[in-house]
Amino acid sequence: MTLSQSDLRTHTTASCSAAFESDALYLNSHIQDVSGARTQACFRELRAMRAKMEVSDSSLPKLSTLPLRIVSENNFPTAAGLASSAAGFAALVRAIADLYELPSTPTELSKIARQGSGSACRSLFGGYVSWQKGEAEDGSDSMAVQVAPASHWPEIRALILVVSAEKKGISSTTGMQATVSTSQLFKTRAEVVVPRHMDLMEKAIKEKDFESFAKVTMMDSNSFHATCLDTFPPIFYLNDTSRAAIRAVEAINELAGEIIVAYTYDAGPNTVLYFEEKNSSTVLGVFRTILAGVEGWEGRHVHLQDTKHIDSKAAHVLKENISRVILTSVGEGPISVKESLINSDGEPLRH
Amino acid sequence: MTLSQSDLRTHTTASCSAAFESDALYLNSHIQDVSGARTQACFRELRAMRAKMEVSDSSLPKLSTLPLRIVSENNFPTAAGLASSAAGFAALVRAIADLYELPSTPTELSKIARQGSGSACRSLFGGYVSWQKGEAEDGSDSMAVQVAPASHWPEIRALILVVSAEKKGISSTTGMQATVSTSQLFKTRAEVVVPRHMDLMEKAIKEKDFESFAKVTMMDSNSFHATCLDTFPPIFYLNDTSRAAIRAVEAINELAGEIIVAYTYDAGPNTVLYFEEKNSSTVLGVFRTILAGVEGWEGRHVHLQDTKHIDSKAAHVLKENISRVILTSVGEGPISVKESLINSDGEPLRH
Repeated sequence: MTLSQSDLRTHTTASCSAAFESDALYLNSHIQDVSGARTQACFRELRAMRAKMEVSDSSLPKLSTLPLRIVSENNFPTAAGLASSAAGFAALVRAIADLYELPSTPTELSKIARQGSGSACRSLFGGYVSWQKGEAEDGSDSMAVQVAPASHWPEIRALILVVSAEKKGISSTTGMQATVSTSQLFKTRAEVVVPRHMDLMEKAIKEKDFESFAKVTMMDSNSFHATCLDTFPPIFYLNDTSRAAIRAVEAINELAGEIIVAYTYDAGPNTVLYFEEKNSSTVLGVFRTILAGVEGWEGRHVHLQDTKHIDSKAAHVLKENISRVILTSVGEGPISVKESLINSDGEPLRH
Repeated sequence: MTLSQSDLRTHTTASCSAAFESDALYLNSHIQDVSGARTQACFRELRAMRAKMEVSDSSLPKLSTLPLRIVSENNFPTAAGLASSAAGFAALVRAIADLYELPSTPTELSKIARQGSGSACRSLFGGYVSWQKGEAEDGSDSMAVQVAPASHWPEIRALILVVSAEKKGISSTTGMQATVSTSQLFKTRAEVVVPRHMDLMEKAIKEKDFESFAKVTMMDSNSFHATCLDTFPPIFYLNDTSRAAIRAVEAINELAGEIIVAYTYDAGPNTVLYFEEKNSSTVLGVFRTILAGVEGWEGRHVHLQDTKHIDSKAAHVLKENISRVILTSVGEGPISVKESLINSDGEPLRH
């Protein structure tokens, strides 16, 4: 599920000019190393697509030969397990594709973004998106497709409990490579569990079946983190605060007598909770009560809730360790905006 | 590996008398419920073996018909993930078998102890023990065999870092049943990973190859806890303190340039560290320095060690949360002692 850009967003401007010395990328005003294989792969593939257009239509300016300057800003912490690299590579690929006026579909661009950061491929779309692993040995047919637009099921809300904006000990991509090569359980996850969950999830989304959506979300998160723990040396993204959030979710669902809220964790301890708009007051009320005073509730009208069904130790751990909440919902995917982060002299505006 | 009884032990006395009203079990001076299927299975099977002897030799007193009174004391916390139920059921079965003068081998008794608590089957032996799952649908050929006696490799030491003597949220047996029925990764662990680890471990023990012993120990612990996390709802035995201990082990091994210490976790957050006597000063020195002032170091001559290779946050978490250390080694298994916990009137001595 792609989240709304009203709340969490990466804004990226791409430019190219013969006046630039070399390719350069600024992230949150800091120059980045672009020599890595992942960034280079994205530049190379996008340039090749532009070059092909230039060959077939000689009236087109030769943008593919010019150095690129890209400026990107996240309004959320980088490398803290909030999918900043997925958002970043998706925005980078979309911005360069727009600069080059490539006629490519989001699915075609997703094959390129995937080489920057695997999960970036999904972020080329809004709504509900599936990353299909493909069959080719070299991953060339691994791409994203949209399962349903945001408008199909707009009622899904997300509440993110940010534990810490500390950088992760290990990047998602490096971690995943270690898991693939050392976890003895990973093969079963990749070959049996994920395909099963993908089918169940696609069905749940199409039928707007929240209970199935929620259960598969939680089970797949647990399965992923199980293979992280089964990596050698083990990778732990979840911590005691994540566990306390899981216990709170279990207690809310138990009291409701049905699954009205799901947890999921990416490569970090931050909890992402999914729920439907109709259960907002119940779900948000509990966390608003436990996390009174935490940044992120401003301007939200959430009534306090009785929280005596929540284990008091879990509530205490959450209160002590959650520094910020982000309330958002399913979103529309990449949007082209007029506001540029590069001035008319080609300089980053806030460098 | 069965631990030495010099440090951690369950002392159990079994008696039977026509004067007793009914079967009774006292654990650490508290009367226990013996009506559960697991305790009943042990009583029933041991009585059946005694009854068979009584039938074939009518001169034998009819002990099998008399109510049992069993008194048991642990010198370590119960249900805190220190394998108290394994020790308890092994001692209970051994004590009743001795009372009944059963000619059974430890392997035969292990089939009975297994019905009380799975891992109890191994504790009928000292040294290095293998629990063989067997092939029968009803588990009737699931039993323990000794891989090697303690004397084969007496140099193995264990340091237990006790996080908490709090009772566990979920018993090992209940947890394992939930894992078997809901984890999608468990089947691979049971059918592929465990048999592979069993073979590697048996070889490592026979060859006294500590590096292999250590690596399999750590990987199998991680694999087990991965399937706990993959259970639905997920089971977490490891916490942030366990993770800090894992990080410390990784740092010690990295500095040593080889694997000189291994971690393993049973159904709780307490760390069990294994190392060879020759590396005691290095391994113990680090933990003695980090955990200065913690109960359990008394009477141990351990030199302090430089700990700057240990992540300072991990060291802090250990210092804040480890309440006790237990230093022990491979042990001899069940021992028959003269000291009785039941007086000549059949009363528990400390009831």
